Amino acid sequence: MSAANRTDIPDEDPDMTYCVGVVLKEGLVFLSDSRTNAGVDAISSFRKMTVFERPDDRVMVLLTAGNLAITQAVVAVLKRRLDAEDGTPNLMQVDSMYAAAECVGDALRMVHQRDSRALKDHGVEFNASFILGGQVAGERPRLFSIYAAGNFIEATADTPFLQIGESKYGKPILDRMLRFNSSLQVAAKSVLISMDSTMRSNLSVGPPLDLAVVRTDGLAMHHHSRLDVDHPYFQHIHNGWGRALTAAFAGLEDPPID
Amino acid sequence: MSAANRTDIPDEDPDMTYCVGVVLKEGLVFLSDSRTNAGVDAISSFRKMTVFERPDDRVMVLLTAGNLAITQAVVAVLKRRLDAEDGTPNLMQVDSMYAAAECVGDALRMVHQRDSRALKDHGVEFNASFILGGQVAGERPRLFSIYAAGNFIEATADTPFLQIGESKYGKPILDRMLRFNSSLQVAAKSVLISMDSTMRSNLSVGPPLDLAVVRTDGLAMHHHSRLDVDHPYFQHIHNGWGRALTAAFAGLEDPPID
Repeated sequence: MSAANRTDIPDEDPDMTYCVGVVLKEGLVFLSDSRTNAGVDAISSFRKMTVFERPDDRVMVLLTAGNLAITQAVVAVLKRRLDAEDGTPNLMQVDSMYAAAECVGDALRMVHQRDSRALKDHGVEFNASFILGGQVAGERPRLFSIYAAGNFIEATADTPFLQIGESKYGKPILDRMLRFNSSLQVAAKSVLISMDSTMRSNLSVGPPLDLAVVRTDGLAMHHHSRLDVDHPYFQHIHNGWGRALTAAFAGLEDPPID
Repeated sequence: MSAANRTDIPDEDPDMTYCVGVVLKEGLVFLSDSRTNAGVDAISSFRKMTVFERPDDRVMVLLTAGNLAITQAVVAVLKRRLDAEDGTPNLMQVDSMYAAAECVGDALRMVHQRDSRALKDHGVEFNASFILGGQVAGERPRLFSIYAAGNFIEATADTPFLQIGESKYGKPILDRMLRFNSSLQVAAKSVLISMDSTMRSNLSVGPPLDLAVVRTDGLAMHHHSRLDVDHPYFQHIHNGWGRALTAAFAGLEDPPID
């Protein structure tokens, strides 16, 4: 929000998070950070990953970016609807991931209707975006990115990943490494390197990280872990990648500038 | 411009260029692309690097990003002032790079005064930013980033590079590799890798590239070259870095997700 007043920093944006989802032949991989920045001296950690699961029937992972009050409200609406008996579709009833993405869009529009005028009065932009991925029995795994307006796009085999928040620092490594036929290991390694590069370049993105893996037709969470910076594997990625890049850089010839 | 209408792509921005300047103990390195995008089917190449030089006295390099009509107008004002005899400071008269940055800011404000209302009537944002670096006899080399409002910041030894335009994709490699004591070779290699990563992730940034190197106390352009994608050294960077990253990636252990 303060960024809007900093006309001397045109590229500054309010993205204080980074989340990425990957859809592959083998399944889905999700990674989110936990940093929320409500001002320069108030950096907190909040979970940005929510799992909806009924083993053997469906598993869905929702990642959130943007204004925390909005994204938490949307998640609350989605959870409340699981118990509602008014016939409104909910994430545990829908028969496709497309319909699940519509549920998230609808919840977002409900929160927009409730809050957007008051937010506008206070000069706060209605800023929220979501990644929703998962599998419902009878379908292949699917991955969606849902925008503040409640509309959404689906990832394709050509570009098998979607990002929200502070996405650019960590995109080159995903462009290079991820293909639809990549393994879940390659995807998990890629998103962790992508996150490491993002955290190096933007202090408002930070640990702990939530990593989730769903195997195609597993219809349950296959792996979930919370990685802090001192987690041995994250340390391996962080230090190993830095060392490898330095060596790769040194291995390239010097430019002919003399 | 069309990006402003695409509410479904919140992170889309109008940056259709990427320029970077580096200031080191040994001197200065500059790199700019040449792509200008005036619409999806109208991608052209325009030089974004302008050199002001009087050997043994001063050398300055100006890089531009943003609305091409605005940035070309600013460069035209700066050049016209070199011949004006009305006492307005110009880049060939000023006795410091700080005063040179003020010249660029003044020219930008003059263009703003002339054009901004008409642009606004047509829904066009006054979008322009500049990197100015160089050395004036009697001073060390200095590097500035000048914003659309005409104000500016100076690079410091802590962060010896400045970027304009589509800056995020190519920032991680600069963060990792560049220090104030780095050599000019390391800086040139870093900015070329940074540009290569940016071009891979954003099609609106493209060749040919302008590379310029200024040696401390050389007070003249040390090296200038135009690199197209088929330039042997750019090919070496493009292919070599891709291969090295793939090898570095493969060298890291698989994540413990099984």
